[in-house]
Amino acid sequence: MVKVLTDADIRERLTAPDAVAWMRDAILAAHDGRLHTPPRVHAELGAGNLVFTTGALEGEWYGYRSYDTFPTDPGSQMVVVHDWTSGDVRGVAVGNELGPRRVGAIGAVAVDALANPAATSLGLVGAGPQAWTQLWAISAVRTLSEVRVFSRDPVRRNAFVARVSEELGLPAVAAGSAQEAVEGQDLVVLATSSPTPVLEADWIAPGAYVTTLGPKQVGRAEFGPDLVARADVAVTDSVAQTSAYDPPFVLAGTPQHERLTSLGAVLAGDAPGRRSPDQTVIFCSVGLAGTEAFLLARLIDRLHGVQ
Amino acid sequence: MVKVLTDADIRERLTAPDAVAWMRDAILAAHDGRLHTPPRVHAELGAGNLVFTTGALEGEWYGYRSYDTFPTDPGSQMVVVHDWTSGDVRGVAVGNELGPRRVGAIGAVAVDALANPAATSLGLVGAGPQAWTQLWAISAVRTLSEVRVFSRDPVRRNAFVARVSEELGLPAVAAGSAQEAVEGQDLVVLATSSPTPVLEADWIAPGAYVTTLGPKQVGRAEFGPDLVARADVAVTDSVAQTSAYDPPFVLAGTPQHERLTSLGAVLAGDAPGRRSPDQTVIFCSVGLAGTEAFLLARLIDRLHGVQ
Repeated sequence: MVKVLTDADIRERLTAPDAVAWMRDAILAAHDGRLHTPPRVHAELGAGNLVFTTGALEGEWYGYRSYDTFPTDPGSQMVVVHDWTSGDVRGVAVGNELGPRRVGAIGAVAVDALANPAATSLGLVGAGPQAWTQLWAISAVRTLSEVRVFSRDPVRRNAFVARVSEELGLPAVAAGSAQEAVEGQDLVVLATSSPTPVLEADWIAPGAYVTTLGPKQVGRAEFGPDLVARADVAVTDSVAQTSAYDPPFVLAGTPQHERLTSLGAVLAGDAPGRRSPDQTVIFCSVGLAGTEAFLLARLIDRLHGVQ
Repeated sequence: MVKVLTDADIRERLTAPDAVAWMRDAILAAHDGRLHTPPRVHAELGAGNLVFTTGALEGEWYGYRSYDTFPTDPGSQMVVVHDWTSGDVRGVAVGNELGPRRVGAIGAVAVDALANPAATSLGLVGAGPQAWTQLWAISAVRTLSEVRVFSRDPVRRNAFVARVSEELGLPAVAAGSAQEAVEGQDLVVLATSSPTPVLEADWIAPGAYVTTLGPKQVGRAEFGPDLVARADVAVTDSVAQTSAYDPPFVLAGTPQHERLTSLGAVLAGDAPGRRSPDQTVIFCSVGLAGTEAFLLARLIDRLHGVQ
């Protein structure tokens, strides 16, 4: 019988340390060519598209995530993993929890590799699922002593702050502005749906680390090239995916795009990461393809007692 | 909780009359533009591809079938249906039963529309799942008094004949050759994986009806353009899909391709079908996209008591 995991299963059974360890493995596997991560494909169906991001880990599994652009809120995504040899379906996840958890875990892999080891303060702009899972995962790689949260909706902002305290046991406060949330913080996370920059580059302290999760296309981006220009190191989980954006990646055609390094190369020691505590680092999270199926495959192994 | 149907569920709960009625609705919906059936999309993953055929019925659902070209035998396909409005997953089928059942039902819709009403004898070349589901569905639209079966493997051939008698209660005999199976029969079904023609056009009697399920690409086809040239009427479930074949459709570039009519147009009365009992008709089955999800959507409605 096929194992079908719901959102409740994912929330209950996927731990942040596991997710971070598995996404680190995934990023390294993609870097050395064992994890295939082809460009996403889509089919047009009138009122919306169905989109498929696929992946295959040589000799182990192949699979995909499906999601859509129909005007549903939130709808349900599917993640499917097939056994490499038999082709049988090893597991299915239905819902919306696995995607953001995987992005959160990738973000924490980047924090662990690129932020100062002593980083303790975090400023967050945004209060949605992506903001939540970033914090969930980062708290597995850094000991946070202060979390400041801003989002435009005060109700969501306060609810988010309460949830951070209750579920993650972290000291969180609501900030009155994006500037108040991020200025001087060791770690900054942008997780908005804003089509225009939500911060100014000079709010970022020397030595800080910034992750951007939200829109990053020309004409629609939560940060500007000035933020990247200010950073000493600029990294992404998939350089290839930034080049495939349509409309183009916000840095396309600028010298900043040429500077982008892949996180896999940094993890493998094939590219430099942070070289001193006062360097500023930006991580452009694009959601490396194939990682949803990777996360599900590992979680199923864990639930079956394979590892 | 998401409903997951296995192959055993499909075998037990999907009846041939229902499948045929639902595929008739699907073909008409595609013809009048309510059923979106875009070209399939695929992603390359090293040792194989993942392939997605999608569909959406305006205002009701959207969904897809996934299958792969990895060297697995048989592996498992997925069919997924989402509610149009909420985006929630209404149902999932895991396995390999739904695909051939839907092709069988489409074949029976074509037989019902295009074969002589008095057709009673059927000749079958092939003894695999596609051959089986054609017979399963056709027996819902014609009263068969004689089924002759040929396949190259005598063990499979005899097992198939026995199954036809036992499960469908039809009088079936093994034929010693393809010619013996099809010559003079009212209905002829080709369901092989043969890369070369398995019959000669002059074996087909005046007034006969021929369905071809197997390979139909230039350089790899179970029938030749001569068979189509001999037919008075040539129909397919998707003219668009024949034009998208790569390598090209076996009739591409020949006058025969221009003659192909869509089954939906025939059903809707927008194109002529058979006009007299002595006309010969060929149906080129290509597997109209979106029909897998259509079949699953209707089956789930039925199981939930919606219709």
